Amino acid sequence: MLELWHSPNFLLEILNKTDSEIETIAVDIVLLTISLIYLVSKIGSEVCARLRLPAVSGELIAGVILGVSGLNLLVFITGETTTLPPLIQGFLENVYGLTDTEALKVFLFNGKVISLLSDIGVIILLFEVGLESDLNELLSVGRQALVVAFVGVIVPFFFATIGLIYLFGVPPITAVFAGAALTATSIGITAKVLSEINHLKTTEGQIIVGAAIVDDILGIIILAVVASLIKTGQVEINSIIYLILVAVAFLVSAIVIGRFFTRFIVNVVDRMQTRGQLLVPALIFAFLLAYIAHRIGLETIIGSFAAGLVLAESNKGEELKRLLAPVVDIIVPIFFVSIGAKTDLSILNPSLPSNREGLVVTLFLITVAILGKLVTGLTVWNPSLNKMAIGVGMIPRGEVGLVFAEIGANSGAVPSAIIAAIIMMVITTTFLAPSWLRFVLEKPGQEKTT
Amino acid sequence: MLELWHSPNFLLEILNKTDSEIETIAVDIVLLTISLIYLVSKIGSEVCARLRLPAVSGELIAGVILGVSGLNLLVFITGETTTLPPLIQGFLENVYGLTDTEALKVFLFNGKVISLLSDIGVIILLFEVGLESDLNELLSVGRQALVVAFVGVIVPFFFATIGLIYLFGVPPITAVFAGAALTATSIGITAKVLSEINHLKTTEGQIIVGAAIVDDILGIIILAVVASLIKTGQVEINSIIYLILVAVAFLVSAIVIGRFFTRFIVNVVDRMQTRGQLLVPALIFAFLLAYIAHRIGLETIIGSFAAGLVLAESNKGEELKRLLAPVVDIIVPIFFVSIGAKTDLSILNPSLPSNREGLVVTLFLITVAILGKLVTGLTVWNPSLNKMAIGVGMIPRGEVGLVFAEIGANSGAVPSAIIAAIIMMVITTTFLAPSWLRFVLEKPGQEKTT
Repeated sequence: MLELWHSPNFLLEILNKTDSEIETIAVDIVLLTISLIYLVSKIGSEVCARLRLPAVSGELIAGVILGVSGLNLLVFITGETTTLPPLIQGFLENVYGLTDTEALKVFLFNGKVISLLSDIGVIILLFEVGLESDLNELLSVGRQALVVAFVGVIVPFFFATIGLIYLFGVPPITAVFAGAALTATSIGITAKVLSEINHLKTTEGQIIVGAAIVDDILGIIILAVVASLIKTGQVEINSIIYLILVAVAFLVSAIVIGRFFTRFIVNVVDRMQTRGQLLVPALIFAFLLAYIAHRIGLETIIGSFAAGLVLAESNKGEELKRLLAPVVDIIVPIFFVSIGAKTDLSILNPSLPSNREGLVVTLFLITVAILGKLVTGLTVWNPSLNKMAIGVGMIPRGEVGLVFAEIGANSGAVPSAIIAAIIMMVITTTFLAPSWLRFVLEKPGQEKTT
Repeated sequence: MLELWHSPNFLLEILNKTDSEIETIAVDIVLLTISLIYLVSKIGSEVCARLRLPAVSGELIAGVILGVSGLNLLVFITGETTTLPPLIQGFLENVYGLTDTEALKVFLFNGKVISLLSDIGVIILLFEVGLESDLNELLSVGRQALVVAFVGVIVPFFFATIGLIYLFGVPPITAVFAGAALTATSIGITAKVLSEINHLKTTEGQIIVGAAIVDDILGIIILAVVASLIKTGQVEINSIIYLILVAVAFLVSAIVIGRFFTRFIVNVVDRMQTRGQLLVPALIFAFLLAYIAHRIGLETIIGSFAAGLVLAESNKGEELKRLLAPVVDIIVPIFFVSIGAKTDLSILNPSLPSNREGLVVTLFLITVAILGKLVTGLTVWNPSLNKMAIGVGMIPRGEVGLVFAEIGANSGAVPSAIIAAIIMMVITTTFLAPSWLRFVLEKPGQEKTT
């Protein structure tokens, strides 16, 4: 008998759980967690669809219900945590016979994996947003969309930042961060709502979508600037200029070089014979641009957004969108639900006196977020257009606003009350705008819900 | 100024890497690792497609090149590891300025995440295999397919197990495990090859596919039995009977109860209005059945396979397959490449005398694997059928064989030489069968490569 075939004593391994067994249990827990996330996100989004609200609001609320502000089932612990929520602790002890330490280990890993999937989720989400954006569409609605976009970025940013500093005594960096979170209209939500009420192809619709695209790019550049500010803690004019230059240079060169590179990719893809011949190279491109963006000091999502913009212009854009859709459907809910789950709404509980100023700040941010976009309607010079509709169409914040909340929460540098206020702002504007937009456009036309 | 708004000192955080910064770096490393996996898997599968070999062989070989037997870029370390491969160590030190401990931490997490994605990948792969299986198709080719399937399972299993025990002195449990790994024909590879040479709808093609389906189910039952054996270390006839009963009961009740449940799901799905309305509930179903299967002592993949079988019968089966395909395209390569990367082929290096017996075992397993399936052709009673083609069509092993290798490797109970021999058997049969099948079917017809 060969030495080679000797194997360890199996029975011993069963008595004391090995690392590998704990990892097997971790797979179970991750499966359960993802199933739970899917279940609540689908219930939430379907309920919202019934109420004619955007699905994303439902996923956020589902996350809030599942997370620290609700059932305490989806919580993200750190290495310093010593106790788990009782329900989870009991489940891991009774069903798997884990000790306290083992249960903590499994649950810490579970949280890190869900966070990582959420990070990959937002990278893929912005890849899709890039794919849905269209530089040419923007050029056709021209100057008007640009004016709406810039006014809609500058006004809420300025008033929110100044207001937070002078009315509420918030430190400048935190105020700039919160102000920046108010800038970007959600292109996904806006386009979805417009298409639901058949107004996507009207001039108003095109201006809104065009402005939302510029907005998105501005929002992402602002995000890069602010994310760096929050890391270095300083408002250095040099580093702002550097970052704007890097962001613009990255986007421009990604688009210009990317156009040539895309032809090469498309050529290669056309010659491929195996499954996944379009999606896999496209994801390599998106992940590598995300990686490069991160390495030069920007956010990963800027890279995947640029990859989407570039690939949208190739003749594979439509097919890629179709293939990416199921992937988005299963990974992006993890992002939205996690964001909701991390939101600690107890900070907004008005029965505690210490929370009241936080609540006032939330109301202030919501007001500025709404008024700051409504005024963009006043910049519309064509008298035949529905100014109110354009202003209202710009109100919903979404993905980028939530990304701000995520980055702020992860940095540890933004107080959780501000994070909660930003998320409340996103939820409120997201809830408000669709019904309002339907109301001001008066004739809703044939309704499509899918 | 409110206490609430006070924030930590950012500059301090940059000097010493915090856990959250290490996690950000881990995201980068996971992105790079996945991109690398995608790149090599695509190169490997495309090269194999050019050589008219199945794409999966290319992904396995790509993994071997990337892993411990090759470039040492995709390696899975454990908590006890103290040094990283020099290239990775250098990269993490120079690019990210990580200390040795931090680099180990990042890389350990990276490996665990890739392993977990690989686990989810195989669950989704078997969900797709279930979706592609068709109980009715099997019934139409009837008894013939059943005979081919049973003979093709029993013959290789019996001769491999007996041979390993009596010729090579392998302990019975390990021998049973290796024998079991030889049983299941790869339905994916076989169906793919038959469709490539336009023989899927011939009687031979239908018998092969029907037998491969039964094979798959038998293989999965055997897997359940053997995986449990390897954990308890005993060949207890009671536990075998228990497991066969549990496996059969699980599959039967999943199918019977699942049929009713599927109507409910389909009804709910038809009323849903938001994105992902089919894929997300289907994945909840697959993940929960995977979880339940695991809890009652079977493997997770039996659950997702059963979920696929059930959903394939609903009127949503085709749409679900179409939606699942892009997901499979991006997650399954992580499984195949990881399997390859974990394969330590140095054990088969013939220049070391201690390896030579291992090599002989590998050759023995490959021979039994081929002859054991070829004999199934002799059981074909219709003289007008191409017996050789049916035998050859059953030769390729694939997913289930590799799952055996994975479970064996993770259990720590199967010597790595046996694991390597199983993987070599899978690679060899996978390589051999397609060209051979094309040869014996003589008139290949119109060739389609997609």
